[in-house]
Amino acid sequence: MPRPSVRENIVEAALVEFHRRGFNACSVEDITKAAGVPKGSFYNHFKSKEDLGAEVVDRYTTGSGWRAETPGLSPLKQLRARFTAMRDAQVGYEFTRGCLIGNMGAEVADHSAVIRSQVGESLEGWSASIADSIRDAQAIGEAPADLDPDVTSRFILNAWEGALLRGKVVKTTEPMDDFFAVVFGNILH
Amino acid sequence: MPRPSVRENIVEAALVEFHRRGFNACSVEDITKAAGVPKGSFYNHFKSKEDLGAEVVDRYTTGSGWRAETPGLSPLKQLRARFTAMRDAQVGYEFTRGCLIGNMGAEVADHSAVIRSQVGESLEGWSASIADSIRDAQAIGEAPADLDPDVTSRFILNAWEGALLRGKVVKTTEPMDDFFAVVFGNILH
Repeated sequence: MPRPSVRENIVEAALVEFHRRGFNACSVEDITKAAGVPKGSFYNHFKSKEDLGAEVVDRYTTGSGWRAETPGLSPLKQLRARFTAMRDAQVGYEFTRGCLIGNMGAEVADHSAVIRSQVGESLEGWSASIADSIRDAQAIGEAPADLDPDVTSRFILNAWEGALLRGKVVKTTEPMDDFFAVVFGNILH
Repeated sequence: MPRPSVRENIVEAALVEFHRRGFNACSVEDITKAAGVPKGSFYNHFKSKEDLGAEVVDRYTTGSGWRAETPGLSPLKQLRARFTAMRDAQVGYEFTRGCLIGNMGAEVADHSAVIRSQVGESLEGWSASIADSIRDAQAIGEAPADLDPDVTSRFILNAWEGALLRGKVVKTTEPMDDFFAVVFGNILH
């Protein structure tokens, strides 16, 4: 049996490296080196770099802290607080990296069914969470009753991914500021 | 003097290859092979693969057909027709490839100042064109007067880039359908 810590070290190192440098820019050797494990150990734990890529997207999704709740907030204020926490993470990285889910979608979705499937699942779960917030807000009259929660939530998440992408280019908060202004000042207002 | 046709062949092949496979997935040799030119000729024409990447983003931008005008359309209908033409191109590629500008932003913006700068310029020009349409629409009462055209146009473009990214993942028109529904049915309505 391979030691679990080797596998875990590989996943953690790959999460950082894929996020920082991109999927195709990292070789298996780059990852095992960053993980401090022998290169030869990789294929004891993963069938392929793609399988590792899918697992890393899943790990990033569950570890994002998106579903954290601040007690006492209304549904829209809670939704805004969650996007604000994601925004602060981008600022912390100085507008490098962006969203690993979006990056993997842009770079690898066309070329790996296993990664595309995991990226799709991550985005679907995230949209569904936004749709729940919109429904809760509609139920108490905090969001317009005529919005379709499913369409609107998918649109909002895609707009967020586009804003992070633009943020990597302009290296300021402007794209995220634009997102907050239109989403919370216009669409959900 | 190098023959201009070799240079042109390289740019055209790189545009297809970077769009289809991604920047880091293509070597200089892949590109010269696709262009049907000797590998050694590359550095007679380009200082680096990055310089070629920036030129390809510029070429893609000017060749997109975005600014085509259909006579007789109102400003918002013209804007919608332009996005519809971009949508049809995505359908034609069966939801592979996405937007080369967005792909290069996601994959390379953190790692190449020359590509980031060109991606930024392309997105800025595109946003400015959308802002012009919004201003024209506001002038004739076709769009809400209280929208900030600059904020709204940047947001809309980022939302479009995010929709194309999601389209590469789900391989249906849903993300673009969501975009049209919210942008033209809600934000600009």
